[in-house]
Order: sequence, then C-alpha cells, then structure tokens
Amino acid sequence: MLKLCHSGLSTCSKQVRHCLKEKGVAYESNYIELWRYENLNPQYLKLNPNGVVPTLVHDGVPIINAFAINEYIDDAFAGPPLKPDDPKDRARMRHWTFMGDDVHQAIINLTYTANLKSLVDALSEEDKQTMIDHTPMPERRARWVRMSGEGYGEADINAALGKVSYTVAWLEKELANTGWLAGPRFSLADIYLLSNVHRIRELYPDQVDMVAFPRVNEWRDKLMARPAAKEAYAPGTDETPPRPAGKSVDGIFAETI
Amino acid sequence: MLKLCHSGLSTCSKQVRHCLKEKGVAYESNYIELWRYENLNPQYLKLNPNGVVPTLVHDGVPIINAFAINEYIDDAFAGPPLKPDDPKDRARMRHWTFMGDDVHQAIINLTYTANLKSLVDALSEEDKQTMIDHTPMPERRARWVRMSGEGYGEADINAALGKVSYTVAWLEKELANTGWLAGPRFSLADIYLLSNVHRIRELYPDQVDMVAFPRVNEWRDKLMARPAAKEAYAPGTDETPPRPAGKSVDGIFAETI
Repeated sequence: MLKLCHSGLSTCSKQVRHCLKEKGVAYESNYIELWRYENLNPQYLKLNPNGVVPTLVHDGVPIINAFAINEYIDDAFAGPPLKPDDPKDRARMRHWTFMGDDVHQAIINLTYTANLKSLVDALSEEDKQTMIDHTPMPERRARWVRMSGEGYGEADINAALGKVSYTVAWLEKELANTGWLAGPRFSLADIYLLSNVHRIRELYPDQVDMVAFPRVNEWRDKLMARPAAKEAYAPGTDETPPRPAGKSVDGIFAETI
Repeated sequence: MLKLCHSGLSTCSKQVRHCLKEKGVAYESNYIELWRYENLNPQYLKLNPNGVVPTLVHDGVPIINAFAINEYIDDAFAGPPLKPDDPKDRARMRHWTFMGDDVHQAIINLTYTANLKSLVDALSEEDKQTMIDHTPMPERRARWVRMSGEGYGEADINAALGKVSYTVAWLEKELANTGWLAGPRFSLADIYLLSNVHRIRELYPDQVDMVAFPRVNEWRDKLMARPAAKEAYAPGTDETPPRPAGKSVDGIFAETI
C-alpha cells in the first residue's frame, strides 16, 4: 500500500512524482490543496510534522523530505536504478541534492513573491493569523509573517537571484562532463535539479538563457522529453488540478487524509 | 590515497572525522586554517568551489558536502555499516540529515556572533573587502557582509534559537523510539546531529537543558563516550590545533593544499 500526499505542480511534489513514474511504481494519489492550507491540518501534521508536501506513506509509515523519499523509492522498489553505481558518482548526486535544496530556499521566495503575495494579501487579518499560528516550521512561519506584511523587496529578490545565478553557472559547468549531473547516466540528481530549473525558467527565463547556458537548456529539454517527466509536469491532470479561485484557510480544519 | 581537508572543531569537520574513525579508515589530515581564510585560496577552491570545509580527496577526486562525504565513506570502505539496513530507517536517516542541515544554518549565525564578530571587526577595511570578494557562495558572502557591519541583532538570534528549539524538541521525541535517530542502531544521522547538539550545548546550554530534554542528553553522552567521537572532538590534537592569535586574510594567498 503506497500513498503519495502531494500538491500538483509544487517543486518537491514534481520531484517525487517524476521519480515514481521513472521507476514504474504504482501509487495512490492524495492531493493536498496548498491554496486551502490543507498541509496544515492536524491529520496531515501527524504524518509530516513540518507541514510541507510531499509525504510518501508506505505500509502506514510516513516518509518525508523529497530527497529522502526519492532515495527510498530507489532503495525499496524494483525498476531501473536511479542512483549511480560508482560511489563517487553517488556522492556527486548527493552533493547536487544539497545544492538543489539550497537554491530551492531562494526559489521559494521568488515563487511566493510572484504567485502568492496578492492572494495572501486578500486573506482577512484573522485568517492570516490562523495560518501563521498553524505553521510549525519556524522559518516558514517567519516567511508567512513577512508575506502577510511587506513581502520581499528588491534586496531580497536580488539575493535570491544571486543564488540562482551561482547554481545555474555551476550546472552549466557540471554538464560539460557527461551531460548528466552525476556520472554516466540519468539519476536522482537530475530529477531534483530539473524541477528547480523548470521553476526558474517559469519565473525568470533570463536566468537560464539559451545563449549563456546551452548545456543547461539541452539537459532540460532532454529531461522534459522523458515520458515520466511529461506525465509528472503536465498541468490539468488528476494529479495537477487547476487552482481553486482565491486562497483560504478552510483546509486547516478539513479532513483531507 | 585518502586525504581529508578539514578544520579542527568546525561542526562539519567533526562529522567527517567522527565517521572516518567509526569506520576505521586511515587518512591523511590536511588542516585548513579558517582563521586565516585558507578555505578561500585558489587551490582549495579548485577542490571545493563553495570554499567551505571539509573536502575528502580520494584517488585525486574531491568529494564535498559533509553528508555526501559520510555516505561515501560508508559506501566505499569496509568497516562497520553506518547506514541502517531497512530502507525506511535509511529514509529516516536522510530526513534527519536535512533537519541537521537546516538547524546548522541557524547555528552558523549563533557561532559567528559568539565567536567571530569581534575578530572580524578587528580586520582592516581592506582585509574585510578581500575576504568578502573571495567568498564564492552568495549566502556566505552576504553573511560576511553582515558580520563586517552591524552583525546579527536580537531578532536574528531569536530566529536562530527558534529553529534550535524546534529541532531539539523533535530530537527528544524521536529518541523515544530506539534511543538512536534512525532505527535500531547507531548511524550517520547520529553523527550528523551530534555535532550540532554539541555546538548548541557550547553556546546555549539552556536550549538542551537536562530536565526538559533527558533523552537528548542521554543520547549525547552515549555518543560522546564512543572512542571515535572522543578522538574527533578532542581539542588540542594534531587535527584540532589551537586557534592562532587574531584573524587574518593571509591564507587566501597561501599555498595550503
């Protein structure tokens, strides 16, 4: 019995769906509507005390953190291996996941600013406070406090873009080796970084400019052409339903698991 | 041929030395003097473009990021296994390394404020700029800019301590299961979190109070009693020499590898 609690086109949900589909592992999809803060309801927090998506539940045991989940999928299920054979390449794969995690923190600020600020502004003061009170991770709570007020300014955005530039430049260099991030074939590192590059391209296409970063673009196109990525990234499927109108805190009090 | 570039009692250097000693793997120690910014010299940056310690060099190949290094050591060398056998426990181990990495970012701000601010203040303006100009990671560079100016204030310290509290409370809960962080025996997760808890105890002992967190204290004592931890954490050895007087940027221009 394998259930994935995820939320459509969120960066980390895409990573795990992409991995499951590459591996050919069937699962039940449990959609968590972030636009209604269903990730903060008490039943979900029992599975994932951080209150973030995704969570994989296997035989009743919750597994959290996208990278730990993807390593788990490769450890626990048959299918094409998604970790390199050579331990040095596996180390490189894990180094890239940390790089990916670092840049993801910067990308969150960019995503929130571009896609969420106006919707958070539209919440009532009481609802804003409800949402903040129910957010367990201190740095996420601080981010929502910020987003409920002035939001991120030019200096914050520039700091986030500085991190993006640093990572994309290193990606371009790394891809000169084999065309993959960690050794001679596709691996979890490619899955992990793809969703970050995909988001960067949605929000700040100049940061992954075709002329300056030809290898990153070639790699991205090659990855996005894989059937598993096509499925995982497709908008409007059962796993990636359209956003509801507006944003509300109703899901904090709903039973969704 | 195995060489470890590390810096004594820095949190991540202790993690990797602890792992190597648990595993019984011999290595050559290459001490990087952070108080002279030797981590920013060009030869070191060739091995580790992030300009942080540690770096493990095996047969000429640099391996970076403490957690990726420790997984590598367990993958590549004989000795007692340091990853759990059960894939679910391995996922838990990796989840904890991410938790450890998150809290480490908060701890860096606490360490810098407690141990480094006055020494950075004592650098000349020219040397401060040299150090900032040679720091590759954008967030580290931003941190040094901050440390070269007003430093971290009460709000920043409280934010960092909030993250510390959150993590320590979860540790206390997790340790109720088996007394280890990831399954029935000692693993890389214990190594990774120990160095963070050790640092918290040095700087803010109230945060790991004996009465409020009995399991965390028992776990810490049990870990620190292991011969490998005793060696890795002992001050004043060849691997943990005393700090030089003051701080300087000389190491940026020195050949240290």
